[in-house]
Amino acid sequence: MPEQVPPHDRVTNSDARTRWRRVIFDHDTAAGNAFDVTLIIAILGSVGVMMLDSVSGFSPTTYHVLYGLEWFFTLLFTVEYVARLWCAADRLRYARSFYGIVDLVATLPTYVSLLFPGGRFLALVRILRVLRVFRIFKLTTYVSEASVLASALRASRYKIIVFLFTVLTSVTVVGSIMYLVEGPESGFTSIPTSMYWAIVSLTTVGYGDIVPVTSAGRMLASLLMIMGYGVIAVPTGIVTLELQRAARIPRMVTCPSCGRDGHDQDANFCKECGARLPVKGVL
Amino acid sequence: MPEQVPPHDRVTNSDARTRWRRVIFDHDTAAGNAFDVTLIIAILGSVGVMMLDSVSGFSPTTYHVLYGLEWFFTLLFTVEYVARLWCAADRLRYARSFYGIVDLVATLPTYVSLLFPGGRFLALVRILRVLRVFRIFKLTTYVSEASVLASALRASRYKIIVFLFTVLTSVTVVGSIMYLVEGPESGFTSIPTSMYWAIVSLTTVGYGDIVPVTSAGRMLASLLMIMGYGVIAVPTGIVTLELQRAARIPRMVTCPSCGRDGHDQDANFCKECGARLPVKGVL
Amino acid sequence: MPEQVPPHDRVTNSDARTRWRRVIFDHDTAAGNAFDVTLIIAILGSVGVMMLDSVSGFSPTTYHVLYGLEWFFTLLFTVEYVARLWCAADRLRYARSFYGIVDLVATLPTYVSLLFPGGRFLALVRILRVLRVFRIFKLTTYVSEASVLASALRASRYKIIVFLFTVLTSVTVVGSIMYLVEGPESGFTSIPTSMYWAIVSLTTVGYGDIVPVTSAGRMLASLLMIMGYGVIAVPTGIVTLELQRAARIPRMVTCPSCGRDGHDQDANFCKECGARLPVKGVL
Amino acid sequence: MPEQVPPHDRVTNSDARTRWRRVIFDHDTAAGNAFDVTLIIAILGSVGVMMLDSVSGFSPTTYHVLYGLEWFFTLLFTVEYVARLWCAADRLRYARSFYGIVDLVATLPTYVSLLFPGGRFLALVRILRVLRVFRIFKLTTYVSEASVLASALRASRYKIIVFLFTVLTSVTVVGSIMYLVEGPESGFTSIPTSMYWAIVSLTTVGYGDIVPVTSAGRMLASLLMIMGYGVIAVPTGIVTLELQRAARIPRMVTCPSCGRDGHDQDANFCKECGARLPVKGVL
Repeated sequence: MPEQVPPHDRVTNSDARTRWRRVIFDHDTAAGNAFDVTLIIAILGSVGVMMLDSVSGFSPTTYHVLYGLEWFFTLLFTVEYVARLWCAADRLRYARSFYGIVDLVATLPTYVSLLFPGGRFLALVRILRVLRVFRIFKLTTYVSEASVLASALRASRYKIIVFLFTVLTSVTVVGSIMYLVEGPESGFTSIPTSMYWAIVSLTTVGYGDIVPVTSAGRMLASLLMIMGYGVIAVPTGIVTLELQRAARIPRMVTCPSCGRDGHDQDANFCKECGARLPVKGVL
Repeated sequence: MPEQVPPHDRVTNSDARTRWRRVIFDHDTAAGNAFDVTLIIAILGSVGVMMLDSVSGFSPTTYHVLYGLEWFFTLLFTVEYVARLWCAADRLRYARSFYGIVDLVATLPTYVSLLFPGGRFLALVRILRVLRVFRIFKLTTYVSEASVLASALRASRYKIIVFLFTVLTSVTVVGSIMYLVEGPESGFTSIPTSMYWAIVSLTTVGYGDIVPVTSAGRMLASLLMIMGYGVIAVPTGIVTLELQRAARIPRMVTCPSCGRDGHDQDANFCKECGARLPVKGVL
Repeated sequence: MPEQVPPHDRVTNSDARTRWRRVIFDHDTAAGNAFDVTLIIAILGSVGVMMLDSVSGFSPTTYHVLYGLEWFFTLLFTVEYVARLWCAADRLRYARSFYGIVDLVATLPTYVSLLFPGGRFLALVRILRVLRVFRIFKLTTYVSEASVLASALRASRYKIIVFLFTVLTSVTVVGSIMYLVEGPESGFTSIPTSMYWAIVSLTTVGYGDIVPVTSAGRMLASLLMIMGYGVIAVPTGIVTLELQRAARIPRMVTCPSCGRDGHDQDANFCKECGARLPVKGVL
Repeated sequence: MPEQVPPHDRVTNSDARTRWRRVIFDHDTAAGNAFDVTLIIAILGSVGVMMLDSVSGFSPTTYHVLYGLEWFFTLLFTVEYVARLWCAADRLRYARSFYGIVDLVATLPTYVSLLFPGGRFLALVRILRVLRVFRIFKLTTYVSEASVLASALRASRYKIIVFLFTVLTSVTVVGSIMYLVEGPESGFTSIPTSMYWAIVSLTTVGYGDIVPVTSAGRMLASLLMIMGYGVIAVPTGIVTLELQRAARIPRMVTCPSCGRDGHDQDANFCKECGARLPVKGVL
């Protein structure tokens, strides 16, 4: 909360805010980089604690240690959230941004567990802590490799939607026919269950919890599987094509030495003067 | 049914037909687009009702509601079919076209269920309602992304046939040998069953309902699986190649602003004047 | 067997041989094409008979019919083999060629079953009939699409061998460690069994007959599966690359109209004069 | 151990070392090639002995023969290790190199089994013998095909790391939600177990030991599987792209006949004078 402070204090405060903002929000300084690495370790640690906490069979001492670590990480993330809010250039915008909400939602569940001890509702709330893992994505957006992949996927989104639509239509039709052909005695108890089986088969996962047992059912299943075998080629072809295109698009990086831009996506050195090109981010 | 009408009425009728034809059959007007979207929602809704109807365990009231919705969608599709027949430019051609037959067959089952209440035959007829889902395809044919995929698949059809033939030959040979090696006691009860197992394994689905248990059988299965692992690459390579070719073929679209054609498959804007290129259809 | 015949008979005989050779061995005449199609139908029919024969549960009459059909096809293939031998340009060379041996071996089993009725040895001999299916391959070698695929696979054979070697090494190492980690009580009864499990997992088949149950085993299995996920990309990349190269190599076809050669692999028409290019074979 | 030897003996010794070094460490002479082939056979043989040794059910005589073969290979590898150490140009560097350690660790376990007969610890030590298989890799590094694949994978390592990170994040989030949705009664006993299930499903392995049974769980699983279906395209696209790039990079080989370099990766003959280009190594 900004208060009434004497002018020179305000300046100092503002300077501290700017300095901290560079550490917390930026990624191109040594301090910012160290902050990012610490944050990633803390996020991975807290997600690890959550995972171990769900495993039964440890000694009571272990659960006490995990409980302690959980509060340690929660307090750490609370401090981090308050610090981000304090030094953000536009506080309201940060608080309402996707990552602002994730940052808040990832710290609240531990506090909520004090108010509502136990029960199914609590489990629902506590699982929200897994959202912390999304916070690492924020850092990956600065990695140029990630942006090449993301832009390739974005460019192929219409083709992928058309492809997924075709897959879902096939699954609906095959699932309905299998429901009729196999019937409830083989585990095809309803059309949605048959569609679940069709998805499990078409994607070549094949759990084996529901399998066709009649000759007609097995022939239809064979057709579906061979079709899936050929069809799996389509998204691969699409993504390969888009990656090739993306690789040809010049990178939006300017050489820090000679000012030349228009470098290839995978260039590590300036093609004009040979200086190393900057790679932003931590990964 | 067209009757004897006074001349000026006939003209009005003809005008109404043309107007409705543009709404029902075309996709490039606001009204046509709204009609398409409504139709898609109705199709998805009716398929959803059919799915839920096959699930057991709901309350009797739910089944009553589903029954009512089923008749609602059937009457809607009946009205639509009559409207299409009425305003089609060539009625006989529409009635005999693939989509004309699908449109008819998708509405009949509910009426048939009144004539033949219950029994296996009825189940067969009612499952035909799932054909409604194919009607969405009619709309996707206007999406240029779909046509790129379709033309890539069409161009690679001979290669895919040769590939499928190779796969089926391998499956026949491996299935026959496995029938001999493993025998009925491991579940390989006949050559067709062994071929079914070979398809399940080669496509990497792997249900696990039939598995080799002898050393010789497991070695043969390992060979088949590793072969399948390498062979899965072939359709992917084919489709990638054809997609690359298709992407190089200029798009059959003329700029609405300057009349320039020969645009790239993925062009959104005219390369001559920068005007937005038309995208037909709804998806 | 060629006998002593009067000179003019010998000429007639030789003419008949040449005529029949064109029908039986060549694929570019109407008669040769008809012969090929008949042969394919007979091969598929006889393989179908063999498959149905292995299925238990039909009526005795059905097995009698299948037995009759088996002899019908066997006599047909015997006639065909004798005819091929008679009209081959170089008889010894045909008899010793791969397809000559397949043609012979595919007809013998039915005769052998008269000499040794019943027993495991007979089953082994009878399964040789499935080799008939390989005879269809002989015809596909004339299809240019097949030759593109085959040459792409041939060009990438060293890369695929290196890749398979890497896969087998990983399977050996992971299989040995899993044998130690999981032990016999989880089904990992020996190193070869563990390697079988590793192949089933790496190729993403995943039967589920042997699965890790310990935490350490599941972590190792997860690593293997994610590695397999990334590694499956390698053969695909290789084949795509070779198909692209193969598509760029000009096709060894000469235009029947203007004599121009050097056409693209997928060209249907001469690029000089527009005449249809010949497609050899039946598929 | 080098001792005090008269001058002319030292020269001979040094000459012998150089000569043996060329045989043992180099791959471009007939003797070196023969040594490599012998070594590969010995490695494969000793790994085969280890595998068979883990299988139960053979006669005691078989285990005696396997025990004898194990000591034969161990002594052979001991002689080889000492020989390598003796003739290495820099002995300490070889002893501390990756392959030096592998060479040593691969021979020790059999000796250790004399000191500690039986027990779990021994099993751990003996499994180290499988490391012998890595020694074959040393030879493959001289095969140019392997180096193309390796450099393509190396070039795409950042993209693959970003991809794997995305996969692991998805697995964590989906695993946590499935733990909540399905619960312990369906086999989702903890978050790590749920994540194991998510990896098994996303990689399309699908053992079927843990499967969702609730409607909500099956819908989430379907989403995950279809996502995995689309996502499997990404590493394939990356590797294809990098292989294409690698194929365009000229090969670092000089024609032995005319001295021309800059040949294509897959060139077998010099493009200047047509002489065969050298292929190093044995595979």
